[in-house]
Amino acid sequence: MPHITLNSAEPGIRGLLRYRPETGRPLSELAEVLLRGPSTLTRGERELIAAYVSALNDCRYCSSSHSASAAAQLLGGMALVKQVRADADSAPVSAKLKALLAIAAAVQQSGLSVTAEQIAGARAAGATDLEIHDTVLIAATFCMFNRYVDGLATMAPDDPALYAAGAQHLIKEGYLPPA
Amino acid sequence: MPHITLNSAEPGIRGLLRYRPETGRPLSELAEVLLRGPSTLTRGERELIAAYVSALNDCRYCSSSHSASAAAQLLGGMALVKQVRADADSAPVSAKLKALLAIAAAVQQSGLSVTAEQIAGARAAGATDLEIHDTVLIAATFCMFNRYVDGLATMAPDDPALYAAGAQHLIKEGYLPPA
Repeated sequence: MPHITLNSAEPGIRGLLRYRPETGRPLSELAEVLLRGPSTLTRGERELIAAYVSALNDCRYCSSSHSASAAAQLLGGMALVKQVRADADSAPVSAKLKALLAIAAAVQQSGLSVTAEQIAGARAAGATDLEIHDTVLIAATFCMFNRYVDGLATMAPDDPALYAAGAQHLIKEGYLPPA
Repeated sequence: MPHITLNSAEPGIRGLLRYRPETGRPLSELAEVLLRGPSTLTRGERELIAAYVSALNDCRYCSSSHSASAAAQLLGGMALVKQVRADADSAPVSAKLKALLAIAAAVQQSGLSVTAEQIAGARAAGATDLEIHDTVLIAATFCMFNRYVDGLATMAPDDPALYAAGAQHLIKEGYLPPA
């Protein structure tokens, strides 16, 4: 049961965005720009970074949601997402994505954990400054969302089919609330 | 030196907001609503929560900036901010604020670290659901900002006078970029 009385039965972040629309609006806009806005990283790659960091933070709702979204938008599907979550270093993703995932894992620990070597590695694998920037901000943003969702003890459904359906809705409608 | 080439010499978060205005706008709006929007927590109290979490994350730029903002808006000034940062439990703040700071410190560790007892303690000290919500989200938000600022190795000036001047500007103009 959530720590506070929400005004809907919606699980995870959804109930929180509805409870406090003044903060919900910029939070939704941030997710939309970072995960779906114009970028040289695919939407699937960005959802994978979000899922990976959420899993490192043990946030069940966010890791399930973004794993489903990544799986629906990556050729490797859920099998690939599970490989990355289990051991990103050995997963069959590009050298660039592997280097960006390593930066995301450092950010999950602390901003101070990111090393110049990790940045140089990402750049050597072809990552641009903007891709490095967005990776750091996606990882940092999910360190926020994960703490927000679990810090208020919101509900996280068990049924994977619910997250898969949510991913299809998200792919069609995006993260912004209906106008 | 920052890990990526920014388009200004502005330190900390300011250079990042300018570098990527698409994400800078919702981030600025989030800070404005949370730290300065209508609330039963004073602006000084909210800045104190931001400063406290930023100090726990060892983020020099954010802890210096928000300590200066809190000091300028709290009766106890910088002496009080330093007491809270050194040992919040024994600092001369209200029982309610002390309970909210304890929740913020738990969020800094992980959302999963917040206990039902901490929530009950805050409520017993007079905190409302919305105050608990905003405390969790402020703490989570600074876990993001701190990682963003340090994960890209942005510059943090040493001179306390610069942060004090920044706080005066912030108090007058707020967090939103000029229209």
